[in-house]
Amino acid sequence: MLVRERLGTAPSDEAIALMFGPRLVRGTKDFGPMLRIHRAHALMLHQQGIITRDVAAGIAGACQALQQAGVETLTLDPKLEDLFYNVEAHLTEKLGARVAGQLHTGRSRNDLSATIMRMHAREAILALCERAMTLRSSLLDLAAEHADTVMPGYTHLKPSQPITFGYYLTGVAAALERDTRRVERAWDATNLNPLGAAAMAGTSFPLDRQMTTRLLGFDDVLEHCLDAVASRDYVLEIMAALALLTTTITRIATDFYHWQADEFGMLELADAISGTSSIMPQKKNPHPLEQARARAPQVYGALIASLTATKSTIFSNNQETGQGAVLQFEMAVEEATTAMRLMTMIAENVEAFPELMESRATRDFSTVTDLADLIVRKYGVSFREAHGIVGGTVMHAVRAGLSATDITIAMLNAEAKVIIGQELDFDAEEVRAVLQPRASVTDKVTQGGPNPDEVRRMIASGRERLDQERARLNARRKQLSDADALLDETTAQLAGASESA
Amino acid sequence: MLVRERLGTAPSDEAIALMFGPRLVRGTKDFGPMLRIHRAHALMLHQQGIITRDVAAGIAGACQALQQAGVETLTLDPKLEDLFYNVEAHLTEKLGARVAGQLHTGRSRNDLSATIMRMHAREAILALCERAMTLRSSLLDLAAEHADTVMPGYTHLKPSQPITFGYYLTGVAAALERDTRRVERAWDATNLNPLGAAAMAGTSFPLDRQMTTRLLGFDDVLEHCLDAVASRDYVLEIMAALALLTTTITRIATDFYHWQADEFGMLELADAISGTSSIMPQKKNPHPLEQARARAPQVYGALIASLTATKSTIFSNNQETGQGAVLQFEMAVEEATTAMRLMTMIAENVEAFPELMESRATRDFSTVTDLADLIVRKYGVSFREAHGIVGGTVMHAVRAGLSATDITIAMLNAEAKVIIGQELDFDAEEVRAVLQPRASVTDKVTQGGPNPDEVRRMIASGRERLDQERARLNARRKQLSDADALLDETTAQLAGASESA
Amino acid sequence: MLVRERLGTAPSDEAIALMFGPRLVRGTKDFGPMLRIHRAHALMLHQQGIITRDVAAGIAGACQALQQAGVETLTLDPKLEDLFYNVEAHLTEKLGARVAGQLHTGRSRNDLSATIMRMHAREAILALCERAMTLRSSLLDLAAEHADTVMPGYTHLKPSQPITFGYYLTGVAAALERDTRRVERAWDATNLNPLGAAAMAGTSFPLDRQMTTRLLGFDDVLEHCLDAVASRDYVLEIMAALALLTTTITRIATDFYHWQADEFGMLELADAISGTSSIMPQKKNPHPLEQARARAPQVYGALIASLTATKSTIFSNNQETGQGAVLQFEMAVEEATTAMRLMTMIAENVEAFPELMESRATRDFSTVTDLADLIVRKYGVSFREAHGIVGGTVMHAVRAGLSATDITIAMLNAEAKVIIGQELDFDAEEVRAVLQPRASVTDKVTQGGPNPDEVRRMIASGRERLDQERARLNARRKQLSDADALLDETTAQLAGASESA
Amino acid sequence: MLVRERLGTAPSDEAIALMFGPRLVRGTKDFGPMLRIHRAHALMLHQQGIITRDVAAGIAGACQALQQAGVETLTLDPKLEDLFYNVEAHLTEKLGARVAGQLHTGRSRNDLSATIMRMHAREAILALCERAMTLRSSLLDLAAEHADTVMPGYTHLKPSQPITFGYYLTGVAAALERDTRRVERAWDATNLNPLGAAAMAGTSFPLDRQMTTRLLGFDDVLEHCLDAVASRDYVLEIMAALALLTTTITRIATDFYHWQADEFGMLELADAISGTSSIMPQKKNPHPLEQARARAPQVYGALIASLTATKSTIFSNNQETGQGAVLQFEMAVEEATTAMRLMTMIAENVEAFPELMESRATRDFSTVTDLADLIVRKYGVSFREAHGIVGGTVMHAVRAGLSATDITIAMLNAEAKVIIGQELDFDAEEVRAVLQPRASVTDKVTQGGPNPDEVRRMIASGRERLDQERARLNARRKQLSDADALLDETTAQLAGASESA
Repeated sequence: MLVRERLGTAPSDEAIALMFGPRLVRGTKDFGPMLRIHRAHALMLHQQGIITRDVAAGIAGACQALQQAGVETLTLDPKLEDLFYNVEAHLTEKLGARVAGQLHTGRSRNDLSATIMRMHAREAILALCERAMTLRSSLLDLAAEHADTVMPGYTHLKPSQPITFGYYLTGVAAALERDTRRVERAWDATNLNPLGAAAMAGTSFPLDRQMTTRLLGFDDVLEHCLDAVASRDYVLEIMAALALLTTTITRIATDFYHWQADEFGMLELADAISGTSSIMPQKKNPHPLEQARARAPQVYGALIASLTATKSTIFSNNQETGQGAVLQFEMAVEEATTAMRLMTMIAENVEAFPELMESRATRDFSTVTDLADLIVRKYGVSFREAHGIVGGTVMHAVRAGLSATDITIAMLNAEAKVIIGQELDFDAEEVRAVLQPRASVTDKVTQGGPNPDEVRRMIASGRERLDQERARLNARRKQLSDADALLDETTAQLAGASESA
Repeated sequence: MLVRERLGTAPSDEAIALMFGPRLVRGTKDFGPMLRIHRAHALMLHQQGIITRDVAAGIAGACQALQQAGVETLTLDPKLEDLFYNVEAHLTEKLGARVAGQLHTGRSRNDLSATIMRMHAREAILALCERAMTLRSSLLDLAAEHADTVMPGYTHLKPSQPITFGYYLTGVAAALERDTRRVERAWDATNLNPLGAAAMAGTSFPLDRQMTTRLLGFDDVLEHCLDAVASRDYVLEIMAALALLTTTITRIATDFYHWQADEFGMLELADAISGTSSIMPQKKNPHPLEQARARAPQVYGALIASLTATKSTIFSNNQETGQGAVLQFEMAVEEATTAMRLMTMIAENVEAFPELMESRATRDFSTVTDLADLIVRKYGVSFREAHGIVGGTVMHAVRAGLSATDITIAMLNAEAKVIIGQELDFDAEEVRAVLQPRASVTDKVTQGGPNPDEVRRMIASGRERLDQERARLNARRKQLSDADALLDETTAQLAGASESA
Repeated sequence: MLVRERLGTAPSDEAIALMFGPRLVRGTKDFGPMLRIHRAHALMLHQQGIITRDVAAGIAGACQALQQAGVETLTLDPKLEDLFYNVEAHLTEKLGARVAGQLHTGRSRNDLSATIMRMHAREAILALCERAMTLRSSLLDLAAEHADTVMPGYTHLKPSQPITFGYYLTGVAAALERDTRRVERAWDATNLNPLGAAAMAGTSFPLDRQMTTRLLGFDDVLEHCLDAVASRDYVLEIMAALALLTTTITRIATDFYHWQADEFGMLELADAISGTSSIMPQKKNPHPLEQARARAPQVYGALIASLTATKSTIFSNNQETGQGAVLQFEMAVEEATTAMRLMTMIAENVEAFPELMESRATRDFSTVTDLADLIVRKYGVSFREAHGIVGGTVMHAVRAGLSATDITIAMLNAEAKVIIGQELDFDAEEVRAVLQPRASVTDKVTQGGPNPDEVRRMIASGRERLDQERARLNARRKQLSDADALLDETTAQLAGASESA
Repeated sequence: MLVRERLGTAPSDEAIALMFGPRLVRGTKDFGPMLRIHRAHALMLHQQGIITRDVAAGIAGACQALQQAGVETLTLDPKLEDLFYNVEAHLTEKLGARVAGQLHTGRSRNDLSATIMRMHAREAILALCERAMTLRSSLLDLAAEHADTVMPGYTHLKPSQPITFGYYLTGVAAALERDTRRVERAWDATNLNPLGAAAMAGTSFPLDRQMTTRLLGFDDVLEHCLDAVASRDYVLEIMAALALLTTTITRIATDFYHWQADEFGMLELADAISGTSSIMPQKKNPHPLEQARARAPQVYGALIASLTATKSTIFSNNQETGQGAVLQFEMAVEEATTAMRLMTMIAENVEAFPELMESRATRDFSTVTDLADLIVRKYGVSFREAHGIVGGTVMHAVRAGLSATDITIAMLNAEAKVIIGQELDFDAEEVRAVLQPRASVTDKVTQGGPNPDEVRRMIASGRERLDQERARLNARRKQLSDADALLDETTAQLAGASESA
């Protein structure tokens, strides 16, 4: 092995078991990107006059053939350290050392690995954004169904004010939209080309970094060569964005978990996504909700692992950052994907019970803020005084075991005398009307509020923004496939030129 | 206390000690934002015809007076729960319950707290960006001084290839630029106005959310009212960005830590920022570097605390999210600020020793890649073969206790015979020349590489981008101060109108 | 300042602002332990013949006087770096450099700081254990009240099998007992004496480390001198134990949070520990439960901060470990303490509603496992078959809107025919009886199960173990106060001897 | 599928893909423990008269046969949810529903899973302790080789005082001993038997929990049945202990990383465990050290994931805790194992260079504390004054480019006049002698200090404690294998009895 000339000995068995073996296993997923980079680099070396047309054609052809054959056709030897050296050994076998040995001119595993990781990461960003859009689309569909489904809103897990189920769903979709945006924006720091940085100081060969940027579909060069091999910040940025996104999902899952409890009884998961008990025959367990909550912790763990494996490393290529800090990236992406799929599955397999929801909101005092507002508007009492009158009334109603619909004018006036020293000429019909949760919802006039028309407007604008996002996503996908096509075409041209020469 | 009419009892001593007391202490920093929000809300209520001009003028005037007097003029009573109720009590005392009680019309502490937190967060973003720019500016200044200071570059803490100290510094400045961008971009999700969301469902009063948005300097309304009170995602986004930024600082600190070690001897901190030992008289300790490394962990901790306190909470107002998830925000901002200040202080108080740096790069074999490149270029040997020839030569040199400058043509040819079966007609002068680290650096032609001219170009473009950032920062500062001026002006107009009426 | 002779310059203002100032502020809490250590060290130096009786008496006396005067009598100058140098300056002023300068013989701030931190940590352990015992005692008291209070047990937030409230409380008390044990066991790694390690290599002065161990109340010497100054593992161990303990508290808080929801209605917090809404008059918010959940995240954050600030530091004295890794210890202890106090307050201010609890368990099918067990026992059907018969019956009952008490023999036999191909001669009375939750609970015969007698037995044994813990706690307290007394006594003897000499 | 009678429908494809499929894959490792538990439970049911001898013998026999055949002989169907139901289906096929269906009498997957997890965890504890002992043994062996190898000690990465390499190694071994102890002590909370807890409330069948405790090798019953299914605290305890242990390893790796740097040059890793560069021929990279540092972050991540997935879950069986909180346990154990193996490999493949080490300690001023001590002892000057005299001398020496061996009496006296106003009658020979690092080391008399004899004593006592640990480990291993033997024997007796009956 030429590369170990400096050392003069093969790696020990324990070194292979602990380092090279696991690295090689992990490396198989790098196969496709690596071979595309090999071809792009060879084509560029030729264009720059660094290697001959025939050498470039030979390398590019052998790489294309190997890529088509697949990684499973390679006999992987952990003694060779990693996938790169195994591919190099394959090329050497096919092309001879003199030809194959020219591929790595002006290059290092350092910039190669940095480039591969960015190619993985950009694919992950696109797939994650798509999953997030699917989830939000499902939530907005469900919201559209339930724009008029009145239910109690909650703060501190206690009924606060009536809302609709559609309003709730539009709210969490809005939060998920910001979460998606953060994932999407990680594209900017990710889709940059480190190739050409070589070990960490560039090279004296006249590389054209713009050309490999085009052939590999990057937006731009990641300029500084030391930065290019030292940094994995985009991985951390994506993981941080996923930590936020999965956190939002745990909150939706928690609300659904509460609302599907028998005691709330407002939602029910379909049998086909529910679990059983091996001992308790009556059990229908909301496993998908518990599972959806269980994903965020894994992402937090991965984030902390990556931060910590980057902290206090030298700002250059080193294995703690280059390998340790990205070790859990794939897991984090999978866990976030599962969280989104679980929540989508739940949104598409949950039944809401509108009558029960509205009936809860009728009895649970969640409309009494509307009553206080009425007192303000009609009787010129300040809000704080009105709050006091109503608060005292509720206390007595609760102690007497009454519900909101049992509130009488006499009860209100008893409190009014305490708080403001006089009775008010309440209109019983008006009080009754204001205590209806549906009225509470439709009376709301605030931008962004629960009024069904406002909710429908927000659903429509949310869907419009989803369309715009999809357009951006598709443009990015096209950029990558166009680059692939360009790479194939340039390889073919070179092969043709080489043959015809 | 009117607001506890529902409960009919004061909070217990232990409840005050564990909850209300600490909250009140923390709350004093909310004083300024709260009173500005109070005024903006009152002015808007008046414009919308919800409260009279006189009431609005009274409230706005009392709030302005209190704000000018300062929080220390308030007697804070933890029995009243928090700062809000203490301010309300003050206004009630000044204006009577009938007038003061109208301020909170169509509003809740939920949207109020959400708004205050965003006002703190946007100030933090601006201050943090400014600190980051100062640091980067110092690093670029130092880079400009050392664009020609040749030193060994490192990978895996082993000499890799010659670079310049200026090249290194430009690289970390580039990484910090992305880190700054992330902090800056958190502005988008932060500077949105939750006011008008009330408890979580808006209100039936015809609020004008756009007006308070203008008066308080926000970019836009945070539209969905439930989302507005439930979400603290911008806090998490800022903290995640700070985690990345402080991580980069630990890496710079680690490199400096190594290079200032006596054994490296390439850097020295000024006496005025160094520490002593109480026992060892010879000691000059690099405390600022250890301190700079110690900041990121605190930020990671704060990030995890906030993520975890948001996870699996109900998606609505609740104290775990509203208070627990933001509890460590201030600390995280302070720690990140300290990290940047420490690193700036270090950059401005470090001496580099160019001669020693270059001499290390001369002897430590870090130029032998250039030798391999020469063999490729001149003798048509493939890079991998050239790597083998040079690698074997280095092994023998190291075993013989020689340094790079001791490499002879005979040594090279001995290896050439082993690797490629023949000797090469090396030119001794050429070999000697290529092994000079300064030549290695100036021969580099790669975009983003260590060639001093390229480094100077990157410094210049980095400074240009700093100027652009500063312009954006100043525009944001102006937006906030313009809003403050508008708020004062509108208050004054109202007061004038009220008096003249 | 003699100690900066090596540097020849005072620290800069920015160095003071960022490093020495904050350190000095934090250091004031070290005052008491530092002066006790000073005295112990001086007494030992004298006993070993290293300093004279008069010098030792002078130093010990000045230290005792200063300790009694309090830290607030010292003028603290951040230019002097930290509390240690400020105290040294005070002693120098009182005793002259020749005498005061002898105190630090054979000692370093390194072993001094390590010793102080351990003295703080052991106090924290004792206080934390006491808080945990108080909480468990409250839970067991509440359990004793409710050993017969039948309620539904839950798995996956769905009714599983009937239990009693006392059974639940005994269960969480058992978990907290293991959590307490982990805090208590951290004592072993904590209460060891690093003094004598000096900078990191001991000294050539013949110190008696056993003597300072006795005078300062330690269990033993922390033997290896490098380990003694390098390690803060006991801090990490305590924080990890607190992370587990506060996690258990979040789970209890979550269960209570659910059960006090109006929809469950099984628990209610007292008004005096509940919160209000500024806008919604009907609100009675369970703030203490949300606050109790919000503490664990802060402890997790502190733990991660400390782990990360220890990771990859040199194994020796360094500021990242010595200061950065312990920076959040005090906060973590406070947060854990608050979590325990909150939960104790809740346990002492919560009302349970036994009738409603039992009625829920009657209707919600949580007894049907008992029905399946009956079928197994009486009819020789296998458990899995019985599970199928009952499961199908429940499905039909639920779809028909029936509750557990509505299950008839006809319904059961319809399923029996499906599952085992035959009807069974059910006894209607027996079926009715087995579906009573109280019967379900009393029929349980398992060790550790919900049978009220078994719960009472567990409460009694839990209290016994609490008594044993208290005895251990008191023994440790006595060990510390005995050491204090011995230190005072030895100081006094020396003073007497010095005077009479 | 009888168990889904309640639901009346099979799980959907997406539910299988997201939940049951992954669970089944993970579950295959549970095969062995599950079948041993099945047998133990069946044997106990028979002993208690709950099932007949023939049924018990049939079940136990089928389980034993299946266990011997291996999990790969089972056709696993994810529609059946998990391994448990797949095994149940296999037994049903073999024995018929009437017999196989009796196995799960008085049991639930809840207590079954809890028991399996504890059996995995206890195996992990034993394996981890063994690895830790191997590492410590290697470190002590290396220490014994180098008890007399003088080198500079460091604080803050600056030379502090001379030590020996053996002293350093004994120190880290001492820290690892405490780390091991924490892993070992997790045994107490782990090796407890949850079986019999059933769903979460025990059962009305008269189970004998002590019998299954014996048959499965547990120390005792995990008594409270709710606690038994709700708690995974032992997993968290083990992971926290591993976080501390791997943290210590990062510190050793960091010290070695520094010392093997060319600039320090004190250590060198063997070629057989070093890595190469694909581009830089001279490279010999210390990959194992970077890899050893990269393990702790993964463990921190796993710990945070598990804490967070336990936080705020209901205190009962639920999938977030039962599955999510233990998901990364295996990974954490593997990473910690790899960290220990890497560090062991390094200790066994590192060369130290004693001459260079001692020569560094000679020149780098690390002996000047000894000089200060000499001044104290001989001239009655206080330590602080002596510190000042020596500190000033060093400052001048450094500025003049001198090393410690160049210090003259004239230089010292120049400082003495400044600090104490007079010269001292230094003995040049004595000064020279005290500045020798070997003298510094041998003059140390402190317990736990670097004197070679003291280091040898600590190595011997460390080895003795290792022997004691090994004895405890072997006793635990025997306890488990004795239980296995008892289980086999009891199964065989029953089979015999059944056949002969």
